[in-house]
Amino acid sequence: MIRLTRRYHFVASHRLHSPQLSEAENDTTYGKCNNPFGHGHNYTLEVTVANPVHSETGQAVPVPALDALIQEQVLSRYDHRNLNEELDEYKFGLVPTTENVLACIEEKLREIWPPRLGSLVRLRLHETANNTFESTLS
Amino acid sequence: MIRLTRRYHFVASHRLHSPQLSEAENDTTYGKCNNPFGHGHNYTLEVTVANPVHSETGQAVPVPALDALIQEQVLSRYDHRNLNEELDEYKFGLVPTTENVLACIEEKLREIWPPRLGSLVRLRLHETANNTFESTLS
Amino acid sequence: MIRLTRRYHFVASHRLHSPQLSEAENDTTYGKCNNPFGHGHNYTLEVTVANPVHSETGQAVPVPALDALIQEQVLSRYDHRNLNEELDEYKFGLVPTTENVLACIEEKLREIWPPRLGSLVRLRLHETANNTFESTLS
Amino acid sequence: MIRLTRRYHFVASHRLHSPQLSEAENDTTYGKCNNPFGHGHNYTLEVTVANPVHSETGQAVPVPALDALIQEQVLSRYDHRNLNEELDEYKFGLVPTTENVLACIEEKLREIWPPRLGSLVRLRLHETANNTFESTLS
Amino acid sequence: MIRLTRRYHFVASHRLHSPQLSEAENDTTYGKCNNPFGHGHNYTLEVTVANPVHSETGQAVPVPALDALIQEQVLSRYDHRNLNEELDEYKFGLVPTTENVLACIEEKLREIWPPRLGSLVRLRLHETANNTFESTLS
Amino acid sequence: MIRLTRRYHFVASHRLHSPQLSEAENDTTYGKCNNPFGHGHNYTLEVTVANPVHSETGQAVPVPALDALIQEQVLSRYDHRNLNEELDEYKFGLVPTTENVLACIEEKLREIWPPRLGSLVRLRLHETANNTFESTLS
Repeated sequence: MIRLTRRYHFVASHRLHSPQLSEAENDTTYGKCNNPFGHGHNYTLEVTVANPVHSETGQAVPVPALDALIQEQVLSRYDHRNLNEELDEYKFGLVPTTENVLACIEEKLREIWPPRLGSLVRLRLHETANNTFESTLS
Repeated sequence: MIRLTRRYHFVASHRLHSPQLSEAENDTTYGKCNNPFGHGHNYTLEVTVANPVHSETGQAVPVPALDALIQEQVLSRYDHRNLNEELDEYKFGLVPTTENVLACIEEKLREIWPPRLGSLVRLRLHETANNTFESTLS
Repeated sequence: MIRLTRRYHFVASHRLHSPQLSEAENDTTYGKCNNPFGHGHNYTLEVTVANPVHSETGQAVPVPALDALIQEQVLSRYDHRNLNEELDEYKFGLVPTTENVLACIEEKLREIWPPRLGSLVRLRLHETANNTFESTLS
Repeated sequence: MIRLTRRYHFVASHRLHSPQLSEAENDTTYGKCNNPFGHGHNYTLEVTVANPVHSETGQAVPVPALDALIQEQVLSRYDHRNLNEELDEYKFGLVPTTENVLACIEEKLREIWPPRLGSLVRLRLHETANNTFESTLS
Repeated sequence: MIRLTRRYHFVASHRLHSPQLSEAENDTTYGKCNNPFGHGHNYTLEVTVANPVHSETGQAVPVPALDALIQEQVLSRYDHRNLNEELDEYKFGLVPTTENVLACIEEKLREIWPPRLGSLVRLRLHETANNTFESTLS
Repeated sequence: MIRLTRRYHFVASHRLHSPQLSEAENDTTYGKCNNPFGHGHNYTLEVTVANPVHSETGQAVPVPALDALIQEQVLSRYDHRNLNEELDEYKFGLVPTTENVLACIEEKLREIWPPRLGSLVRLRLHETANNTFESTLS
């Protein structure tokens, strides 16, 4: 059983503001991230998959298929986007915190995950060099 | 004569769109960066200063004064901002490409640069891990 | 359940020398790190916290509160310090190896950890680029 | 119980080609990595060991002994080598994918692992900045 | 006048052996890099171009055109290759040291460099994290 | 003409305190770095050498000879040391700021630099990830 981790990169903007909170609470909760005009990040997504090594190929996972899936399900939707304005997930009140972004990516990947890519066991999303979010799926 | 380089970090969003170009030209020139809703980056600014080493202190530049200047002139204005919407430099048609952001930062720093901080000899602005812009000032 | 990892940085000096060992044993055990005058490092501390995502804020942990806690309990005590000479933990014979530094930080954080910051599940301390120590707390 | 992770570096070349697959299957499976003349990488191996901290030394593992073991068992065999042509593991049909390299290193280390170095709990092998393989041993 | 630096990545294998040197001299000169079976690296190429910023686009260089040129002239030829066996430059006795690789890339780029991409002012080739070669062209 | 940059690593402790300044001036000038017990860093030294490429070997500089020189002149003296207490350069009032450390290393290297290693054209000393000092020698 081997775990493969692939790293993918996208750039996006977001604004942290919750319609369920007052202006004062939004300010206290999000600070500079509550700026009405938004800001942005270079995000790195780490996808970790576990699978036995195939005896003929010596590979755990067909990497081109994994890359294509992440391109289609994540990068094509998140890269060079304003998360609040352009993604259905965050248009109706769900705040695009990195926690929620990670949870939405996880939910989408779980729905369509093909067994031939092994088990999706961990997602990590780096927002800055000092800030990482992780979801342990198994 | 020693050169000191300090690295500063800010996060911001921008949209690349020139009012002097047609829609088709904007699309050809900027591609995904022309997305009307914008996107964002973790920027790193490198400030390089040259100065002789002071014989009593053994230092080339008073670093706290340099940090305070960059905080006031750059970080307080650029960090957690939407460059197109919030900075006067880019509100009236100047496109916030990283080239222009670097030139605007340079112009502002040159105007108020205090001689006691030495000579400002180079600015570098990293937009992503694979993309860096540099202005050699001397 | 999301895990947030924050990275904090401090610089410090230490000397590895155990009063329970002979001079020859100290030399064999610690090598150059036994140098009587000490040496130092740029340390990076990774703090990992697990918590459910709050439905209103979309956040797992109030980051400013976490930062304030680490500043007070760790950085204010360890940054720009000589660990052997200045911290009570290591004044009376406990050797400030990175293992012991990690254990002391863990003990201190566990004593005062406020439940509203979630569960402290992992601490990592990087001593150099090639040397990392980890304590799995849960 | 502390986990120590040490990082070791080696450079090597390999070619991915399975004698159990047809030419067309090799091409589909390995793409550019199937190039008959091979290519190469700067590999980083992370070795993670778990052990209680020794009360007299304050150390979990004698690092010089760990380094000597990895030098003898891994680096002296893999560094500056063509994996397909020079290592017995891959001369007879086992494809030197990073998965198989990791498995072979694990098998070799497990055979001769001395208890005084603690428990070998995880191996990670980085092939590029975006591609990491991991074996959880415990 | 702005300098743009773009970083490109390729993986390749090589062997350092000069037909103009004796076996003993080859061994002394290249050490482990003289291994007859070769080894490999993850290379990073930095291309630095100087150009005035275009007043309408705010850009110094059309990046897609630069990327296409480097893809065609460098990456398509060097990525996933054995430099000694597959590139005409090194088949007839020129040793594929990183110095020579850099010089060959420079010569090729200079021959076909289109003025609309600005002035090619510096090439850097990183062989490992601790080893960089640079050619200052202007 | 090629420039080779090699990176070397050492760890050391220092205290910034000038006997030519009052206590108050020392505090204002050096802040936390004036702590009487000192602190430390992981330093990285970059040595850049310019030389034509040798036609027979394809190399600009004999790297083993360069490594041996830096080991003897710099690393053996600075690694795992307390700069204030153990190095003659800083025992008699010269403050071991990174500026002065860089100047002392430069002076020592210039005295004994052998022409066969090419021209020493630049030294850089990284104190932290955000703080670099550079001396341009040519």
